[in-house]
Amino acid sequence: MAIITLTTDFGWKDPYVGAVKGAILKELDAVTIVDISHDISPFHIAEAAYIIQKAYDSFPDGTIHIIGVDAEHTPENKHVAILLNGHYFICADNGSLCLIMSKLKAEKMVEINIHDRISSNFTTLDVFVKTACHIARGGTLEVIGKPINSLRSITGIHPQVSESGNYINGQVIYIDNYGNSVTNISRELFKEVGRGRTFELAARSEKHKVIYDRYSDIVNFDTPPEKRDVDGKGLVIFNTAGLIEIATYRSNPLTVGSASTLFGLQLDAPVIINFENK
Amino acid sequence: MAIITLTTDFGWKDPYVGAVKGAILKELDAVTIVDISHDISPFHIAEAAYIIQKAYDSFPDGTIHIIGVDAEHTPENKHVAILLNGHYFICADNGSLCLIMSKLKAEKMVEINIHDRISSNFTTLDVFVKTACHIARGGTLEVIGKPINSLRSITGIHPQVSESGNYINGQVIYIDNYGNSVTNISRELFKEVGRGRTFELAARSEKHKVIYDRYSDIVNFDTPPEKRDVDGKGLVIFNTAGLIEIATYRSNPLTVGSASTLFGLQLDAPVIINFENK
Amino acid sequence: MAIITLTTDFGWKDPYVGAVKGAILKELDAVTIVDISHDISPFHIAEAAYIIQKAYDSFPDGTIHIIGVDAEHTPENKHVAILLNGHYFICADNGSLCLIMSKLKAEKMVEINIHDRISSNFTTLDVFVKTACHIARGGTLEVIGKPINSLRSITGIHPQVSESGNYINGQVIYIDNYGNSVTNISRELFKEVGRGRTFELAARSEKHKVIYDRYSDIVNFDTPPEKRDVDGKGLVIFNTAGLIEIATYRSNPLTVGSASTLFGLQLDAPVIINFENK
Repeated sequence: MAIITLTTDFGWKDPYVGAVKGAILKELDAVTIVDISHDISPFHIAEAAYIIQKAYDSFPDGTIHIIGVDAEHTPENKHVAILLNGHYFICADNGSLCLIMSKLKAEKMVEINIHDRISSNFTTLDVFVKTACHIARGGTLEVIGKPINSLRSITGIHPQVSESGNYINGQVIYIDNYGNSVTNISRELFKEVGRGRTFELAARSEKHKVIYDRYSDIVNFDTPPEKRDVDGKGLVIFNTAGLIEIATYRSNPLTVGSASTLFGLQLDAPVIINFENK
Repeated sequence: MAIITLTTDFGWKDPYVGAVKGAILKELDAVTIVDISHDISPFHIAEAAYIIQKAYDSFPDGTIHIIGVDAEHTPENKHVAILLNGHYFICADNGSLCLIMSKLKAEKMVEINIHDRISSNFTTLDVFVKTACHIARGGTLEVIGKPINSLRSITGIHPQVSESGNYINGQVIYIDNYGNSVTNISRELFKEVGRGRTFELAARSEKHKVIYDRYSDIVNFDTPPEKRDVDGKGLVIFNTAGLIEIATYRSNPLTVGSASTLFGLQLDAPVIINFENK
Repeated sequence: MAIITLTTDFGWKDPYVGAVKGAILKELDAVTIVDISHDISPFHIAEAAYIIQKAYDSFPDGTIHIIGVDAEHTPENKHVAILLNGHYFICADNGSLCLIMSKLKAEKMVEINIHDRISSNFTTLDVFVKTACHIARGGTLEVIGKPINSLRSITGIHPQVSESGNYINGQVIYIDNYGNSVTNISRELFKEVGRGRTFELAARSEKHKVIYDRYSDIVNFDTPPEKRDVDGKGLVIFNTAGLIEIATYRSNPLTVGSASTLFGLQLDAPVIINFENK
C-alpha cells in the first residue's frame, strides 16, 4: 500500500490538511497518509528542511513525501519531484531538501509540468496531490515533468569551517518542542574537523567542553535523587537527528525553563566550536 | 472502505479525539478515519461551518462527516443525520451546515432518535459514533431517525446586498493559520451583484480596487527580488474556498504581521464592497 | 489488523511523531496507527496517566498503546510492557499507568530487556517501536522482557479519605481544552464514601452542593433563552471519564472564561468534599 506523508505550514485548524487528505482518498483506494508536521512556521524553509530530513528515512523505501511550504507556483518557484535515497519528494524548488541533498545525490529530478492540465490556486491540493497519486499508482517522474540537474539551496543553512580548521561556525536552526536549541553542526562534521582534539563550544554565555550522547549522561545515579539538582541544567548533546543541540535537562519552557529562553539561543543564534590548535 | 472524518472543538491534547477513534475502530474492521480539525474555537459554530464547507467535498462520495461542536443533546439541540451532495453529515442541529446548505438542498434529513438505546453524557463518542458506524455498514438514515424538513441556520453569517444592488455588506468569518481574514463574500455573489462594474472594497482602513486570484499576482517578476518590497503587503484575493480574503503577501503573524493584526480585521469585522452606480 | 496508539510529549511540530510512525510502517505492512495525544506537558506523568486512562478502553481488545513521556532509559527509569484488561501498554516505569492500575490488576508485566540489541538514543523510536511491532506480530511479552511484580506509582495523585470518613481530599489533576478543572475524585469513591449523604464541595472560593451528570442540567429550558444567563456559570459534574470536574457552562477560555482561570483552579489546586456527619 502506498504511503504519502505531509509536511506543511497549514496549521492543524484550517480546512486545508483535511482537504488534501480527501483529495488523495478520492484518487487512491488503498493508501496510508501520515502527517509529519503541519506546524512549520509560515514560509519557513529551514524548519521544513530540518523536519523532513530527520523524519523521512524512518519510512519504508518508496514513500512519497509532499512538502507544502511556500509552494505557490511562480516563475521563480518551480514545482519539482525527486527520487532520492529510495524516497519520492514533491515540493517547490525552494531549498526544502537542501539538508538531505547536502549528503546524498538524487537519482532522478524533474520539474513538474502538468500545471496546464489543472486549474486552481491551491498548489498543494492540486498539483502535488496529482503528482503523488501518479507516483503511488506506479507512474514515472518523466511522465509528469522534465528532467533537471540541480535544485536551489538556502544560503546560510550550512555551517562554515574556518581556514585554519580550528573553528566551526554554526547556528541554531530549530527550536524543538522542549525549547532545546538545535544547531546545524552534525556529528560527522564535528568528528571530521575535530579529529579527536579538545574543544570549547560557545553559544552566547554558554560554554561547554563535553558533548553527550544522551540527556541522562549528566546525572550521577550514585547520588540520591533529592541531592542531584540537575533539572534545568544546561548541557550539549548529539540529538537523535545527529546534530549538536544545546539543551536543558528535563527541559520544560513553562517550569524550569529551556535552552532557547534561559540562554537566549533563538533561531539563527551563532554557535562556535573552537578546537585546540595542535 | 468507509471514510469517517472528524471536525470538533475537542483540541488535540485531551483524550476525547483518541477515545472517539477507538470507539469507531471497535465497531468497524475496515475504516479510514481522517481528522479535519479539532481546533474549532469552543462552541464556535461559524468556524465549524466554514471549515467543513471548505473541506468536505474533496472527499469521495459516501464519506461520513462527524461534527462534534456544541453537540450536547438538549431539548433545543437535536441530533441530526443528513445526506447532502452525496456526503453524510452527523451533527447537532445548530447551524454547522448552514454554509453548505445555503447552496445545496439535502437529499435526506433525519433527527436521530437512538438516544434511549445509549446511556452516556459523551454525545460525540456514543450517539455520533453509533450513527456513523451504522451508515458505514450500509444502514439507512430512516432506521436511526425520523425525517425532518429543515435545519437551523446562524443569524448574521450570510452577507447582505443593499436594496440598490450597489453594496455587499459582509464580514470576517474566519482568521486562518497565516492570520489572513476570510470574509463571507463568495466569488459567485461578487460576480452576480457586481456584473463587471468597478468597485471599492473597504475593510476598516484598507481600501482595495482589485481582487486577485493568487497571492503572487501582486509580484512583478521583472523587478529584481531585492527591490520588490512585497512581503507583508496587503492584498485581496479569492481564496481556495472561493471566498474573498484580505491577506498580506507571505503573511506571518510572528514576523511581517498579518491582515488580522496589521489591519485590525478580526472575527466579525465588517467588509463592504461598493460597486460603481451605473 | 493491529492497532498501535501513541501518547507522547513530543508535540505536533517536531519530526519525532512522524519518525515513529515511519518506523512502525517499515516493520508492519498492515497496521492502524492512532494518535491519542502528543501535547502532554513535557515530562508530566500525571497528565499522561489521566489521558491514557480515559482513552484506552474505547479501543478494541489487543490494542497496543505506546506512551512516550519521560521515557529515556536510565538505571532508575526501566522500560516495561504490560498486558492489562486485554490491552498492551509500552512505557517507562514512571507511573504513567497508575490511574489505570489503581482499579485493575495486570495480567502480565515484563521489564523490557532488548536494549543491547538496539543502538540509539531515541527510546520511543527504537525500543518501544520494536516492542510494539513484536507484539503486533503475535509475539509474547516473555520474549522481550523478564517478568516483574509491581510498577511505580506517582505520589499524591490519589485522593485521601479522612479517618472520620467525612472528608475526601482531592486535587485538580488536569485542565482540559475548555479550561475545565478535572479532579482525581471518581464517581465510585464519591459514592462509596458519601453513602448518599448531603455534602459540600469546596474548591478555593467555589462551593457546590450538587454534582450534575451533564453540563446542560443547569439550564431551565422553560425559561426563554435570552433570560437564562447561564453561559460561563460555574457547575460541578461527573465528566465523561467518571471524575468530578469543576466547569463553567459553555466554557471558553477566550470569551466567558473558564473554571481554571475564573476560579483559580489550576493543576494541584485542592478540592475538598465534606459530607454531613451522621
